[in-house]
Amino acid sequence: MKQYLHHDEWLIIEKGLEPENNKISESVFSLGNGKFGQRANFEEKYSGPTLLGNYMAGVYYPDKTRVGWWKNGYPEYFAKVLNAANWVGINVNINGEELDLHQAKVSDFQRILNMKEGYLNRSFKAEMANGNQISVDTTRFNSIADDEVAAIEYKIKVENFSGQLDLTPYIDFDVENEDSNYDEKFWVEVQKEVESGVGYVVAKTKKTDFYVCSGMSIVLLKNGQPVDFEATSNERDKYIENVITLAVEAGDEITLYKYVSNVSSFYHEKEGIINDGKKGVQRALNTGFAKMLEAQKAAWAKKWEESDITIEGDVSAQQGIRFNIFQLNQTYTGEDERLNIGPKGFTGEKYGGSTYWDTEAYCLPFYLSTADQKVARQLLVYRHNHLPRAIENAEKLGFSDGAALYPMVTMNGEECHNEWEITFEEIHRNGAIAYAIFDYVQYTADADYLSEYGFEVLLGIARFWAQRVSYSTARKQYVILGVTGPNEYENNVNNNWYTNLMASWCLEYAEEAAKYVKTNAPEKYAQLVTQTNFDADKEIAKWTDIRTNMYYPRSEELNIFLQQDNYLDKEQILVKDLDPKHLPLVKNWSWDRILRSIYIKQADTLQGMYFFEERFDDETIRRHFEFYEPRTVHESSLSPCVHSILAAKLGMEDKAYEMYVRTARLDLDDYNSDADEGCHITSMAGTWMSVVKGFGGMRIKNDTLSLEPFLPKQWQSYSFKIRFRGALLKVNVTKDGTNISNESSESITLMLHGEAVTV
Amino acid sequence: MKQYLHHDEWLIIEKGLEPENNKISESVFSLGNGKFGQRANFEEKYSGPTLLGNYMAGVYYPDKTRVGWWKNGYPEYFAKVLNAANWVGINVNINGEELDLHQAKVSDFQRILNMKEGYLNRSFKAEMANGNQISVDTTRFNSIADDEVAAIEYKIKVENFSGQLDLTPYIDFDVENEDSNYDEKFWVEVQKEVESGVGYVVAKTKKTDFYVCSGMSIVLLKNGQPVDFEATSNERDKYIENVITLAVEAGDEITLYKYVSNVSSFYHEKEGIINDGKKGVQRALNTGFAKMLEAQKAAWAKKWEESDITIEGDVSAQQGIRFNIFQLNQTYTGEDERLNIGPKGFTGEKYGGSTYWDTEAYCLPFYLSTADQKVARQLLVYRHNHLPRAIENAEKLGFSDGAALYPMVTMNGEECHNEWEITFEEIHRNGAIAYAIFDYVQYTADADYLSEYGFEVLLGIARFWAQRVSYSTARKQYVILGVTGPNEYENNVNNNWYTNLMASWCLEYAEEAAKYVKTNAPEKYAQLVTQTNFDADKEIAKWTDIRTNMYYPRSEELNIFLQQDNYLDKEQILVKDLDPKHLPLVKNWSWDRILRSIYIKQADTLQGMYFFEERFDDETIRRHFEFYEPRTVHESSLSPCVHSILAAKLGMEDKAYEMYVRTARLDLDDYNSDADEGCHITSMAGTWMSVVKGFGGMRIKNDTLSLEPFLPKQWQSYSFKIRFRGALLKVNVTKDGTNISNESSESITLMLHGEAVTV
Repeated sequence: MKQYLHHDEWLIIEKGLEPENNKISESVFSLGNGKFGQRANFEEKYSGPTLLGNYMAGVYYPDKTRVGWWKNGYPEYFAKVLNAANWVGINVNINGEELDLHQAKVSDFQRILNMKEGYLNRSFKAEMANGNQISVDTTRFNSIADDEVAAIEYKIKVENFSGQLDLTPYIDFDVENEDSNYDEKFWVEVQKEVESGVGYVVAKTKKTDFYVCSGMSIVLLKNGQPVDFEATSNERDKYIENVITLAVEAGDEITLYKYVSNVSSFYHEKEGIINDGKKGVQRALNTGFAKMLEAQKAAWAKKWEESDITIEGDVSAQQGIRFNIFQLNQTYTGEDERLNIGPKGFTGEKYGGSTYWDTEAYCLPFYLSTADQKVARQLLVYRHNHLPRAIENAEKLGFSDGAALYPMVTMNGEECHNEWEITFEEIHRNGAIAYAIFDYVQYTADADYLSEYGFEVLLGIARFWAQRVSYSTARKQYVILGVTGPNEYENNVNNNWYTNLMASWCLEYAEEAAKYVKTNAPEKYAQLVTQTNFDADKEIAKWTDIRTNMYYPRSEELNIFLQQDNYLDKEQILVKDLDPKHLPLVKNWSWDRILRSIYIKQADTLQGMYFFEERFDDETIRRHFEFYEPRTVHESSLSPCVHSILAAKLGMEDKAYEMYVRTARLDLDDYNSDADEGCHITSMAGTWMSVVKGFGGMRIKNDTLSLEPFLPKQWQSYSFKIRFRGALLKVNVTKDGTNISNESSESITLMLHGEAVTV
Repeated sequence: MKQYLHHDEWLIIEKGLEPENNKISESVFSLGNGKFGQRANFEEKYSGPTLLGNYMAGVYYPDKTRVGWWKNGYPEYFAKVLNAANWVGINVNINGEELDLHQAKVSDFQRILNMKEGYLNRSFKAEMANGNQISVDTTRFNSIADDEVAAIEYKIKVENFSGQLDLTPYIDFDVENEDSNYDEKFWVEVQKEVESGVGYVVAKTKKTDFYVCSGMSIVLLKNGQPVDFEATSNERDKYIENVITLAVEAGDEITLYKYVSNVSSFYHEKEGIINDGKKGVQRALNTGFAKMLEAQKAAWAKKWEESDITIEGDVSAQQGIRFNIFQLNQTYTGEDERLNIGPKGFTGEKYGGSTYWDTEAYCLPFYLSTADQKVARQLLVYRHNHLPRAIENAEKLGFSDGAALYPMVTMNGEECHNEWEITFEEIHRNGAIAYAIFDYVQYTADADYLSEYGFEVLLGIARFWAQRVSYSTARKQYVILGVTGPNEYENNVNNNWYTNLMASWCLEYAEEAAKYVKTNAPEKYAQLVTQTNFDADKEIAKWTDIRTNMYYPRSEELNIFLQQDNYLDKEQILVKDLDPKHLPLVKNWSWDRILRSIYIKQADTLQGMYFFEERFDDETIRRHFEFYEPRTVHESSLSPCVHSILAAKLGMEDKAYEMYVRTARLDLDDYNSDADEGCHITSMAGTWMSVVKGFGGMRIKNDTLSLEPFLPKQWQSYSFKIRFRGALLKVNVTKDGTNISNESSESITLMLHGEAVTV
């Protein structure tokens, strides 16, 4: 845990340059616009600790996997988020000495992320070894109004010398991924052009053949006046630069504008993509920095209008929740059904892939409530598009007849992950993908989605479960053997309660969806029946047999469901009775010791009760909460939010708040000592859920929005915004009660603490 | 399966050079003398399929591990059998054209392994592109009489040309391991010398700093007469050669003797090791090829005298069993307590490491019965020497107070393997190490071994089990959670019956050993108590509590022990009812599918009944055999021998023979399509056991040797030899009955079919 960032309602502020914090700040101060993003690497050279990171949405590389021992069924490739061109770089040279912030004497260093307006500012003074002093103030942003361009304003003030100042903006594709398995570089140069003031590099990825053009155009002011300059152009493989040499005197202020465009073959023809890059740069140049920034502020204002949460009486909490919302909005905009939400967004390359079950289980509710429903819908369509791959994936594992197993980690629908206990066994992910369809339809009432896309996905998933269960002649019930549940601190267990429940529910929902489509879209239904060889009577009869005869492990004595078979054989020492020096377990215990312990990484049985809350009475949920919570170590960032929501529901307000606090500032305070690798983007949605579904008690019940808010005693008040079927509501919870205002023209009737209210 | 080798009682014969068989033959025709060995690579250049392999006993390299996802507790390095200098090489050049057996027109190719006398012979005719024809006949062996030297006789006859013949014997350390994780080379040159007729290279391994000197001395005959020659010496990094140029005419016969020495710092000072290499070469040179070969034949005659098995009426079976005995004797001689029996011996580099539980469970009985007891004893001392490392290994996994966990795979006592389900969970290996002590003491009556070394090892192992069990308050019994049993087609199961049984037995035997040492070696006992902080009363009381309250999974309905908890939840489709296209499962099914199936890779419950046969009546064993055998796929080469022995015991003679056949010619007929990687050395001992313990029914009962032989109906007769406490017995089983002769001077009383017989 590190608490070096300053608290502010709208800004993230770092003061002073500490090399050991730099990689954390690079993650936290990252910028993204849904199409591209990058870590907060410096413009200038920095020989201290840094992780260079620039990412283009959808552009990946299938790195050859590295495994210890190959298992049949493993995928050959791991599709990775790809480090793309460094386009932020501007080298500074003063009287022949290169500015390196790790070598220079740096003072008044300040880095500010303006979340309200969506830009990054940085300023500092530097004294070089030669005694020359400068002040720098630089602002940059990735435009969300024109999402293929970015701009940097780099102001440098000459403090105490005269002589020669060289500024060298560049575009550099000669980068590598830190987690490349065999230290390969993934880019090959296609084309480049450079002349004074402009330059472009087009590179393509090996194997996947993605083309990306990154280009720049430079504008220079001296003391506020435009300067004509003649830059020296240099190039090497995958790299171009402009060296701009200026004669300067003390007091001079030089401003360099670097207008940048990043375009990829994800959106443009490969042939002539350099022209698309040139157009982007030209648009930015024509608009100019000031107007671009204005548009940026306006676009962010709109995003905040729909998704802001305010907290009074706790600046740190206010900053934390806004940071989470800011990052989620930077990562995914819902404009492209081929994109998804990577675990690190645009803030790091760790974990490869872009899509985990996090998207469905944690992120979807955020986008459902804070953006137009088409945004959440895109996340669903993404999986529909991957259905053929999910069917192939299941076939690799021996399933047939259209059974679909969605991958644990993916970029393009193919599985990337290579641990048998996860890849082959953490199959509950399939359930989350079905649940997301249910969640979406329940929230939006857009049941036609079932006909258009949803049922086909549900059918593949149901077929998977129907083949994956085994009938135990010993128990005379269906069992699901050899799985890993959401709690990854158990591997290859039998009858994970959550998985069995999810499987049953999927079979039920698939049946319901089949009936809906048959009734409401008979033509489409007929077409699907043919296309998928769906034998409704026979298959549904089988589904019914399975779900009505599903086995669920339970302890009669404790009157609870067991996380899996034989869970009570384990030594029952609660987390509170563990010597804290053992925590976190993942860093201190060998894997086998973790596996044979009772300790739960991440809500598992409780995750099931959260998803299917209406099926259990409060006393049942309370019994399970009281049993499992003391056994949970929350070593996944996705865990505490579920506990927080359930605790809130059970009226355990302190516990709900305690769980909320564990995730709210996870990255800002580097809670798990891993923010240097990137931010935990998907778990940020969990934090949002803790507030809205936890403290706010938001649910959809009988097609109606329902709220049961309480105010944590640590706060004066809080408010959140939700969209629900055309209405945009602001819910303000104070010591005096809850005020709900409708910021849309559509009136809505909702339940507040069980009573109908119309706003 | 490939059956291209010709049957013969004492010879392995290959006729014709088929590139696709070459790597298999390289494995099968391998030579070794316990100190060094090599695959049957050609002397000449061969650009076809080949795996170069030369190995020095005890010389290994800790290759950096490659894992998919790191787990706490994994070892950083994987100690590998190391490919050492190629010392067999002799390049042949005729009138400027290099002889390459993959390019030349080869006829009359024949390769013969003479198992009786311990040498490899190869002959062929070759016609080059330039039309020149030669005949070659070459014989080589690794001396077991002087185990640091080897000799090659390379005879080349000029058939149809005159002109220039260049022979280039060389020593080449510039080799790599095919399974190097990061394509590194592991040798660095230390020193080399070369002049006409002699040459040496000293190289050392990176990291482990083993020094090895390989050297040669060349003698040349022309038409039977010694030839003085002046060779051109060449060298490059880690390589020396002599180019010997001869003017030849049709009909000339040139014989080149290459006398070789391979010495390592395992046995010599690093400083000046080249001199030890020179001495070895000089000894060989002084003795000469003929006398060396004579000594070789004599030494092998002695080995066969002690370990031969004869089979009448089945040449293929005779060849198969002799091949197994030959390879076992080539691999391990028992002269060095630091050595062990690698899974591939000197025939390949696969699987790294040198020591698995195979040694204790399968190989020990072979060496106990066929060699002086000190040979088997060395295998035990090896583990005693590794006890400190086993304790460290257990500490890494969270155990304490002298608990020892022996590694799954090792070279020097450190764990090498990196799959959590094996490395951390296949802990039954610890039991096999204890069992080997029991086996040795029971066989030899050398109970003092317990005082000297055995008890200390048993104590470490008992302490491990005492910490590794958990007390289940639900069952009110001790359980062992999260293990992988001998059947590796189940991972991370609870209460593997074999493991629970082994653990209990270890606790019992450790107690027995403690009492023996206390009574028979009180001083040593007192010293051990101090040294190990052994609190006998308390610890033994705990052991007793655990073993008397151990839980064993069982089905009351079927009246059998279950392989592990909930085994009956699996779908019970027997192997015979599986579509054969699914077999072998490991090549056709994804790992999760294998795991959730009933199919057993390798005897597990039955392995326990084999080890502790006297604890179960025949009916119990039969019930278990009849339940588990139809569920076993025998995809480990170590499996059928156990089934064969139990079937024999139960009088199921056909089944016993069927199981025997599955391993007897495993490598000779390339049963599993993997002999190209090396031979299955350790499972060869299992084949020996099938004959002696299976067909021969050999047991030790009440300190007495007991035999219950039967004759498989496919054979006329068979005989085997066993040493037992000073006596050397030949047991000959014919249709007329069993004849036992004593080839030693010591008389012995044994049980034959339950009746006492003195021979």
